[in-house]
Amino acid sequence: MKEIKAVLFDVFGTVVDWRKSIANEALNIGKKYNIEANWGQFADEWREAYHDQMKAVNSGERKWINVDQIHFERLEFLLQKYNFPKINYEEKLKLNKAWHRLSPWSDSVIGLKRLKTKYIIAPLSNGNISLLTNMGKHANLPWDAILSAEISKKYKPDIQVYQDAARILGNDLEETLMVAAHKFDLLGALEAGLRVAMVTRPDEFGDNKKADIENDKRWEFYCRDFNQLADELNCD
Amino acid sequence: MKEIKAVLFDVFGTVVDWRKSIANEALNIGKKYNIEANWGQFADEWREAYHDQMKAVNSGERKWINVDQIHFERLEFLLQKYNFPKINYEEKLKLNKAWHRLSPWSDSVIGLKRLKTKYIIAPLSNGNISLLTNMGKHANLPWDAILSAEISKKYKPDIQVYQDAARILGNDLEETLMVAAHKFDLLGALEAGLRVAMVTRPDEFGDNKKADIENDKRWEFYCRDFNQLADELNCD
Repeated sequence: MKEIKAVLFDVFGTVVDWRKSIANEALNIGKKYNIEANWGQFADEWREAYHDQMKAVNSGERKWINVDQIHFERLEFLLQKYNFPKINYEEKLKLNKAWHRLSPWSDSVIGLKRLKTKYIIAPLSNGNISLLTNMGKHANLPWDAILSAEISKKYKPDIQVYQDAARILGNDLEETLMVAAHKFDLLGALEAGLRVAMVTRPDEFGDNKKADIENDKRWEFYCRDFNQLADELNCD
Repeated sequence: MKEIKAVLFDVFGTVVDWRKSIANEALNIGKKYNIEANWGQFADEWREAYHDQMKAVNSGERKWINVDQIHFERLEFLLQKYNFPKINYEEKLKLNKAWHRLSPWSDSVIGLKRLKTKYIIAPLSNGNISLLTNMGKHANLPWDAILSAEISKKYKPDIQVYQDAARILGNDLEETLMVAAHKFDLLGALEAGLRVAMVTRPDEFGDNKKADIENDKRWEFYCRDFNQLADELNCD
């Protein structure tokens, strides 16, 4: 089997804990406007829009819009639903950028640094490039490059996204390892011809639902965190 | 005037000393095959192909090919011209990747680190993404993202390249500063609506030709190196 040269990472849920980060930011703006709510649920509802809109883009039903735009549309709906007063555009934009400020899981930065000593590492997220770039800076993620579905103007799990990413880095498909905490993403990468590693993130959805992170013989690696992945790939 | 949010860098000549790096690698392979030559001139001749092929792509005369491909075509021509014996494909490919291993000017890494504390920093080069990613890793360039003409499938100084890069990072054109040691690049960026800084690299072309690095009232900043640019932008 060929040597792995690049390791690509799903981001939301795999590298960063989106739910706790978003719930915290929502709690803060809720306080400002004297609104009480289940902010974890607010985060879940914000995230929900994501998959439907991406399907609509991939099917051609909707023309390309990036994740910032998908988040903003959904935010406007949620602010009404949660009875926020009228908020000005700048404040909404700032809140929408909470998705650029997500916090990493505790093993993410150290694990990425170890993997970086041996491989090209890059996100391959449905998030847009500016979101991923700002997040990388905010969270000290030591990426070698920023890759995104935005380059292909299709969303994962469309196989073109994975294939474009592998080739843009100058590698063959089988020299490229996709890391994710989600089955649909790993299945897409496999169909595209990449190699796959599941890193389990059991707490991703908090008390909302159980993460679907069973082992599967199709996963070449199955790890509890990025340190274990670095160990299995013999990184220092 | 708006605040600068992102600083984009031309790479060949501006961040890295392509001529000395390439001449060194050519000298080494020359030794292996007992060939003596002026390797600085070899580097110049290798680089020469670049501008003609890019013009052909931008005019539509030639469909998109990336810089690795442009370099490889030219390398095959030069190996014959310099009387190299038949070299196998892997060795040629390795030599072609000398362009992924260029050395930075002495102020580049420290200057970029200082600029990074305040701005999003990224290359905006005609070099392809894999070339820039490998170079960043090789030379410890602390990029926040890797941007390239490859994203637009047009070459600088086509204004689309600059405008796509500014927008992909989520910023307005006038929030984006383009840094280069070359007049044609700064003029392209200006026409595109970006702000511009010249960093002079008087030794770029060695003894082959004098670099065209005169000051011009159109340059918002005019600096001898990245440290001076960081000073003028009030970076720590």
